[in-house]
Amino acid sequence: MPRANPNLLVQSLRGASQVFFMENAATGLLFFVAMAYASSLTGNWATPIGGALGVLVATLTARLLDCDAPSVSSGLYGFNGILVGAALPTFIASSPQLWAAIVIGAAASTVVTAAFSATLTDKWGIPGSTGPFVLTGWLMVAAAYSFGRLQVTGDAPRLAADLVRGSAGIPGPADLVAIFFRNIAQVYLLGSAVSGAIILAGILIASVPAGIAAAAGSLVSLVVALAMGADPSAVSQGLYGFSPVLTAMAVGVIFLTPSPRVAVYAGLATVTTVFVQGALDALVAPAGIPSFTAPYVLTMYLFIAPKRLMAPHPHAPVADHMVGEGTPARPASPAR
Amino acid sequence: MPRANPNLLVQSLRGASQVFFMENAATGLLFFVAMAYASSLTGNWATPIGGALGVLVATLTARLLDCDAPSVSSGLYGFNGILVGAALPTFIASSPQLWAAIVIGAAASTVVTAAFSATLTDKWGIPGSTGPFVLTGWLMVAAAYSFGRLQVTGDAPRLAADLVRGSAGIPGPADLVAIFFRNIAQVYLLGSAVSGAIILAGILIASVPAGIAAAAGSLVSLVVALAMGADPSAVSQGLYGFSPVLTAMAVGVIFLTPSPRVAVYAGLATVTTVFVQGALDALVAPAGIPSFTAPYVLTMYLFIAPKRLMAPHPHAPVADHMVGEGTPARPASPAR
Amino acid sequence: MPRANPNLLVQSLRGASQVFFMENAATGLLFFVAMAYASSLTGNWATPIGGALGVLVATLTARLLDCDAPSVSSGLYGFNGILVGAALPTFIASSPQLWAAIVIGAAASTVVTAAFSATLTDKWGIPGSTGPFVLTGWLMVAAAYSFGRLQVTGDAPRLAADLVRGSAGIPGPADLVAIFFRNIAQVYLLGSAVSGAIILAGILIASVPAGIAAAAGSLVSLVVALAMGADPSAVSQGLYGFSPVLTAMAVGVIFLTPSPRVAVYAGLATVTTVFVQGALDALVAPAGIPSFTAPYVLTMYLFIAPKRLMAPHPHAPVADHMVGEGTPARPASPAR
Repeated sequence: MPRANPNLLVQSLRGASQVFFMENAATGLLFFVAMAYASSLTGNWATPIGGALGVLVATLTARLLDCDAPSVSSGLYGFNGILVGAALPTFIASSPQLWAAIVIGAAASTVVTAAFSATLTDKWGIPGSTGPFVLTGWLMVAAAYSFGRLQVTGDAPRLAADLVRGSAGIPGPADLVAIFFRNIAQVYLLGSAVSGAIILAGILIASVPAGIAAAAGSLVSLVVALAMGADPSAVSQGLYGFSPVLTAMAVGVIFLTPSPRVAVYAGLATVTTVFVQGALDALVAPAGIPSFTAPYVLTMYLFIAPKRLMAPHPHAPVADHMVGEGTPARPASPAR
Repeated sequence: MPRANPNLLVQSLRGASQVFFMENAATGLLFFVAMAYASSLTGNWATPIGGALGVLVATLTARLLDCDAPSVSSGLYGFNGILVGAALPTFIASSPQLWAAIVIGAAASTVVTAAFSATLTDKWGIPGSTGPFVLTGWLMVAAAYSFGRLQVTGDAPRLAADLVRGSAGIPGPADLVAIFFRNIAQVYLLGSAVSGAIILAGILIASVPAGIAAAAGSLVSLVVALAMGADPSAVSQGLYGFSPVLTAMAVGVIFLTPSPRVAVYAGLATVTTVFVQGALDALVAPAGIPSFTAPYVLTMYLFIAPKRLMAPHPHAPVADHMVGEGTPARPASPAR
Repeated sequence: MPRANPNLLVQSLRGASQVFFMENAATGLLFFVAMAYASSLTGNWATPIGGALGVLVATLTARLLDCDAPSVSSGLYGFNGILVGAALPTFIASSPQLWAAIVIGAAASTVVTAAFSATLTDKWGIPGSTGPFVLTGWLMVAAAYSFGRLQVTGDAPRLAADLVRGSAGIPGPADLVAIFFRNIAQVYLLGSAVSGAIILAGILIASVPAGIAAAAGSLVSLVVALAMGADPSAVSQGLYGFSPVLTAMAVGVIFLTPSPRVAVYAGLATVTTVFVQGALDALVAPAGIPSFTAPYVLTMYLFIAPKRLMAPHPHAPVADHMVGEGTPARPASPAR
């Protein structure tokens, strides 16, 4: 683990790298290069500027709140903020109020990160990961529908039955390669295959196994999305791949110790994430909000939560109930 | 408790019986008979075949993941899988992708069951019950709206105000008897009163009190649904009764030790479940997904969670807050 | 703390006062005066009568369930019931079934309060506050869409894009003063500024700091709602202020020990609540249910959850996983 470093810039670059579970300022710098490259194509620089503002505000907020210093130094209080900052300009038109929303959202993301740490992580052993970004991002985008000074630019709310679906042919080889990289780029909400290649390079300089898992996740998601007949436009933009990429990395390499058994488990998790992506796209459609990385977050929580020798509650009385007699249940497992 | 049995078939039949909280292979066999009887009427055999596939895959997955052996043997890792397998063909048209979805959903239901066990059960003392089925089933059906190779066959998404409601007369005696049994059959997504009678017989051979609670739950739900003016078609199909049947069994007999006091408490829980059924039908309408057993699951979690001598947090400072002074709160109860 | 008092009337009046975190029967009496004043203007007395019925039923249910006696005596089992009783007639037309729904909802709110206490509070250190009211109220109003004998009178379900938004001028001084008080009155679902003034007086006789926090929350929410261009009609009715008022009190004075640092933290929480209000209004629109105090509840939970020296999970293996090797993660913080 790199040495704790009080420099806000280094902490923020590490925060950028933590989006892909790395703790490496050079990797974070490459991620900003990837964002800048995509902006140079579109002429819209709001994503890297919003991301930079978000990670700075989130990291500074963590310092002001006296959050655990090694965690702040590692960038663990910054990666949700960078995603809030990158995501809001993607879905809300520019205005002074947008930039105020980014500052408030990034500061709030630090509190949400601390809340997830104190509950989900500390009590249930589940990493919060980008859950705080998903929650904060959903609230800020949904709020824009209520606020005249925040204009939502993305998809309008609609019923799930109106979703586009596909069952057409398989894209050509060049398209497949581009999708492979866009699946990685879209974690940062970027539509550029080159940006995805830069990001993958950034991961590989920090961890080769993590890079391999990311690539495997991208491939698996592509096969499953095509086999199930997902919306070809969404598949082509990489929107069916970014959550599975994160799941493959998180379950296969980061939060479990790699082994053949873990690889199979991570494979099931990655395939499941593609279904959860399709599901959440439909479930959030009436609300008009993007699913963000929620498919990864939900799947990862479910696959990381199980503990060894765990037994479901038997269909027998629970202990110590307010109303019942409180006969103790049969012990959950012989080993406990 | 029956002796642990390594036979996959026996474990799977016990899994079928655990849908109604029993651990009895003969009961499970009767439940398959009930499914087969309903299929013989409609000519559609996807429900029993899907159920059989689901419970086998879920149980096998639990064995491969080295889940707690006595729990696997008791069928506690199979009952969510059988429901996933029975439910998906009810709401998604047959295709090779449907059967792939059943396999993936059933395997995932085992992971979700382990996740619920490690958190909700182990940390909060609440049985997971069919919660993993509800979550997995919702995700798989919602995903079908995004996938061209999975066609949803049931109700289309709509706004809550479009729900049908009734306030007409009371059904005749023969209809009431049929609804009484359909309320039980619909736990297995079956519309046949005879299937409901077979299932009730299966419960009674395993536990007379459980059978009485099921019957009482069916009766109470019928009275409340008619009194509130629920959609007569839904009431007639048994759709207002299957969750209250499970609540009456779970709260009245299974998870609390039966007593007059517990019976009153279970009565309130059963009545509440009818309201929650109406509520969830409206809340999931925009997403176009069925409510499954969610009304039972939510109500049961809320009624089983309370512990003896529990006190709400007083309106006084919380302990050890990141920002506050951390003055300890008044002890929650004198007895702790 | 006032002495435990077995009198149901005093317990119920304290329950009324606990809606604003007070434990003072005189304050509770003033709150009923505020409700009665608003009813004298509209001629509709369902709110105070429903509130009285709700708090009596909820408190009696807690006594019958042998809930923690000091908590019952303090009114902590009554304040969710009074809100259920006051809210249901606001959104559902009068009928015998409405009054049955209030009795069932108020009784259920006591069970939900005990469930939140046993989980959220006891395990995660988060006060349940009005979360049980929000959950119970949502379920009862949503159920009305399914029940012919319960007619929803408020807004119909719609998609988020149809929400009214404003960016017009700033209201005049007299309007601003009226909104300032309505922001407080709407916690009790009252639209009268005079009722808000009576409620503020009731808070001040119990706690001057709490009254100051309520006033500050009202002011901050008004500035933010106008700056973001929220629906002018909703702002004028006080609908953008009542949750921030509760957040300012809860985070600034009640659950954290007041200090300049806590005041800044409560300020961020209050601003965040205005965004969450806009967000939840949009998110619940398709379901046709009101957001109730959910914006306060969600924000307060997130801002009260963080504990001192808490660290997010590092991006390293979790301990003791069912499938992984279970290498222990780096300790979450040096101090633990």
